[in-house]
Amino acid sequence: MRPLGYIKSCFKEKFGTPRQPHVVPLSSASIKILGEWNPKDSLSGLEEFSHVWIIFEFHQNENKNFNAKIYPPRLNGQSIGVFATRSPHRPNPIGLTCAKLERIEGDTLYVSGVDFIEGTPVLDIKPYIAAADSKPEASEGWIKRAPDLTLKVEFSEQAREDLQKFDDKNLQAMITQILANDPRNPMDREPSRSGKVLGFFLDNYNVVFKVHHRTALVINIQTREEYDRYTQPS
Amino acid sequence: MRPLGYIKSCFKEKFGTPRQPHVVPLSSASIKILGEWNPKDSLSGLEEFSHVWIIFEFHQNENKNFNAKIYPPRLNGQSIGVFATRSPHRPNPIGLTCAKLERIEGDTLYVSGVDFIEGTPVLDIKPYIAAADSKPEASEGWIKRAPDLTLKVEFSEQAREDLQKFDDKNLQAMITQILANDPRNPMDREPSRSGKVLGFFLDNYNVVFKVHHRTALVINIQTREEYDRYTQPS
Repeated sequence: MRPLGYIKSCFKEKFGTPRQPHVVPLSSASIKILGEWNPKDSLSGLEEFSHVWIIFEFHQNENKNFNAKIYPPRLNGQSIGVFATRSPHRPNPIGLTCAKLERIEGDTLYVSGVDFIEGTPVLDIKPYIAAADSKPEASEGWIKRAPDLTLKVEFSEQAREDLQKFDDKNLQAMITQILANDPRNPMDREPSRSGKVLGFFLDNYNVVFKVHHRTALVINIQTREEYDRYTQPS
Repeated sequence: MRPLGYIKSCFKEKFGTPRQPHVVPLSSASIKILGEWNPKDSLSGLEEFSHVWIIFEFHQNENKNFNAKIYPPRLNGQSIGVFATRSPHRPNPIGLTCAKLERIEGDTLYVSGVDFIEGTPVLDIKPYIAAADSKPEASEGWIKRAPDLTLKVEFSEQAREDLQKFDDKNLQAMITQILANDPRNPMDREPSRSGKVLGFFLDNYNVVFKVHHRTALVINIQTREEYDRYTQPS
């Protein structure tokens, strides 16, 4: 398996990266195809499709042991067979995402509605063909029994000021989509950690928030430069 | 990449294997998960889903050279970028098929509506999640411009007798689905080869047919045993 290229994504770290692509439709990424794959020719015709499959490597998967059952975050402590999930922790670390194809410019695809992290190696790109791939009638499996764990999202006065300053029209909506789906790991969801201050990078921003009961409160938002200045040893 | 198991399929050879899974809904395959993946646990919960993604290796892909553009059979001689197609001839030989999950028995999945060949190594199995995977609104790309190359399918008197003898209720419908989608390669579609007698194995049957104008005529159908007896050197 040889990478076609590497992803540039609005998601910079595991924490804050959605577990499914459709929950953050405003998310965006680009994929620059390496020259050895002759992107001018190999991408020709793809621009006519509205959606594409991105097959990628879960490259940040450090866990080398195979676990036949895993604990999906939305099952709140219950386990299920790994092949009944889209978990990254699988025998072959292959990820599969249907993304919206926004445009192709030269050797680079621009996509939205994604769930992959900066630096992800891409293994394949295929057109989405509704006749073969779209099964709106498909049953939901155990997912229909999963409890609703979505959070209400609020912004502090400071966070609202920060948003105004950045003048990035999608930023608030994107943060809301991410936090509504509760990015916390099961440990940080324990009641004893309620109110713990957490943060993640999104595009060029560091988003700081805390969760209390079923509400996520965005405390503040900094640019990466502000964050670096603040956290670097003097 | 390590195989999870190998496919047993009604399609025994490249010729006669459909190029997309949805065109032969009656086709069927099974996948026995190797013991090292602890199928009892790793498959648990998957039985609740109606559809699954099978990610597999195009293992019969002998062409080791990379071609950025390919000639899809249904474009009748026109070329297009490999990433705008589902062709097996791609940088990483990864196939992606949404199949209907009929049932799971112990370590074995039974699926239908497939396009893979006997012996295919399976790399991953994932549940189909309509919220993320189903995009009925997706645009068709160049496929909407492809000419209609479907064939009318007829059965000779001999073929009808053979079908009656085998008493396999899906066989006629499945042969019709395969031939309607014209399994011939571009060379055999040349007018000079009109009427050439061709054959492929389907399950335990050898199907012999010829195409004239836009009609495929099934000449006869033999069991594999009859075929072997007929063709073996004495």
